[in-house]
Amino acid sequence: MMSGAFRMTRRVQFAETDAAAVMHFANYYRLMEETEHAFWRSLGLDVLTVYKNQQLSWPRVATSCEYFAPAYFEDELELFLTVVRVGSRSVTFAVEFRRDGQRLAAGRITAACSTMAGGVFASTPIPGFIREKLAPLVRSGANEVE
Amino acid sequence: MMSGAFRMTRRVQFAETDAAAVMHFANYYRLMEETEHAFWRSLGLDVLTVYKNQQLSWPRVATSCEYFAPAYFEDELELFLTVVRVGSRSVTFAVEFRRDGQRLAAGRITAACSTMAGGVFASTPIPGFIREKLAPLVRSGANEVE
Amino acid sequence: MMSGAFRMTRRVQFAETDAAAVMHFANYYRLMEETEHAFWRSLGLDVLTVYKNQQLSWPRVATSCEYFAPAYFEDELELFLTVVRVGSRSVTFAVEFRRDGQRLAAGRITAACSTMAGGVFASTPIPGFIREKLAPLVRSGANEVE
Amino acid sequence: MMSGAFRMTRRVQFAETDAAAVMHFANYYRLMEETEHAFWRSLGLDVLTVYKNQQLSWPRVATSCEYFAPAYFEDELELFLTVVRVGSRSVTFAVEFRRDGQRLAAGRITAACSTMAGGVFASTPIPGFIREKLAPLVRSGANEVE
Repeated sequence: MMSGAFRMTRRVQFAETDAAAVMHFANYYRLMEETEHAFWRSLGLDVLTVYKNQQLSWPRVATSCEYFAPAYFEDELELFLTVVRVGSRSVTFAVEFRRDGQRLAAGRITAACSTMAGGVFASTPIPGFIREKLAPLVRSGANEVE
Repeated sequence: MMSGAFRMTRRVQFAETDAAAVMHFANYYRLMEETEHAFWRSLGLDVLTVYKNQQLSWPRVATSCEYFAPAYFEDELELFLTVVRVGSRSVTFAVEFRRDGQRLAAGRITAACSTMAGGVFASTPIPGFIREKLAPLVRSGANEVE
Repeated sequence: MMSGAFRMTRRVQFAETDAAAVMHFANYYRLMEETEHAFWRSLGLDVLTVYKNQQLSWPRVATSCEYFAPAYFEDELELFLTVVRVGSRSVTFAVEFRRDGQRLAAGRITAACSTMAGGVFASTPIPGFIREKLAPLVRSGANEVE
Repeated sequence: MMSGAFRMTRRVQFAETDAAAVMHFANYYRLMEETEHAFWRSLGLDVLTVYKNQQLSWPRVATSCEYFAPAYFEDELELFLTVVRVGSRSVTFAVEFRRDGQRLAAGRITAACSTMAGGVFASTPIPGFIREKLAPLVRSGANEVE
């Protein structure tokens, strides 16, 4: 199950719940990003990098999430990240949310490698030293696999 | 442009920006929901309703967003909501984000009509008095239309 | 009541509630800041200003809030801001939260006039064109007055 | 330094930063609460408890924070919680934020022991089994001590 995925755990905090007594649906995206950034760190990379005197960043092109069962306050979630695709200028991550083995949600983030200055982004090819680390990890169909 | 859509405006707040100096990508989902709830109110409905002695709610089944250009602090965004589909037990909304006519982002929320008690949801058919108000507003292809 | 205060209204959004079914206590600080920024705009000022080729900002030195009664989803809150003090390098705002005349909460923000570059702040005297607008509005004891 | 305090670490996440490239000031309150809840768990208690058939909760009466230096994306913060006061019906916690030994911020939360039903709170005496665990930990002057 989820072999090859990057895994971390994360407890649901009170401020992340809503008046329906479950984790608010928008917060799944914050947890996906936390997992993504922990994944970058696990590779010895930083999601914000200076490269050839330019600030690199990864603005999001598309995100999505499917929700199967609610997460509750103080749940200790398992988050599994897989690299679904590495294009010439973008990358797609899939993140699964599990609790005690039960699949609660599954989402995706597609981010574009970009230079950034003052809130303005310009698409740029993924530098070789990043591609070398991401490409071997690509595993398609991440969200479909049990 | 976006004829037939529910429209509201919403300023980007400082707490919604991030260190890239743009609105954080997860906050688009909060704005989509704010628009959805304002839309319910505009119909004289409430997203949380007691019906036949049960609390109705609309937990999310799937959400997604595409991002075309960043939104900045204090931008006054126009948000356009259209009803894309009304099923027997779920509804899909599309929300467009515009600034000065420029399309910044486009997202979707699919929510399941559910009874709710103590954070536990059970799918239920959409009551007639809600369906009657939503069904005439359905407009397919909402995100594709200019 | 609250004569001389800057006033705005703001609806409590679903994502701002928590599993106790009330607005989460940290979100009062976000609403205080939204009120402060609307107040700046009402004066024809911007909380982020370029002055003598430097980016001015107002990092917070101290904030506080007292809570008297909960705020709920979809409550339309009245927010009243008063200027409590204008020092040589800092300013203190008080913000009251009311619903249908009932006082729900009262908070304060003390912010330091600062130059800002790359997340580093340096205290600086409040420029004259800002002081001229704030000083006449000072009203001490803002939170105590009914 | 901070002997007798409950300690945890917590990384600053990207969604917690703002366009000034620092952790947004309201998020310090979320981190204070995360520390408080981890502290409750460390005592074998839960901040939400059923006691004599009533749901107990701890709505906030007053909160405050002083800010000494900014926290940045990916900073690994040390959070130190001390119990400042245990009254008959309320408790006050102090939380310090440190990075590499430097004190970044210091805040307080005063919370009232309450029964809770449907978003309505009623003050109630702190039950003995909770008081017994908190009282021995009281350490006054928490924020002043180095």
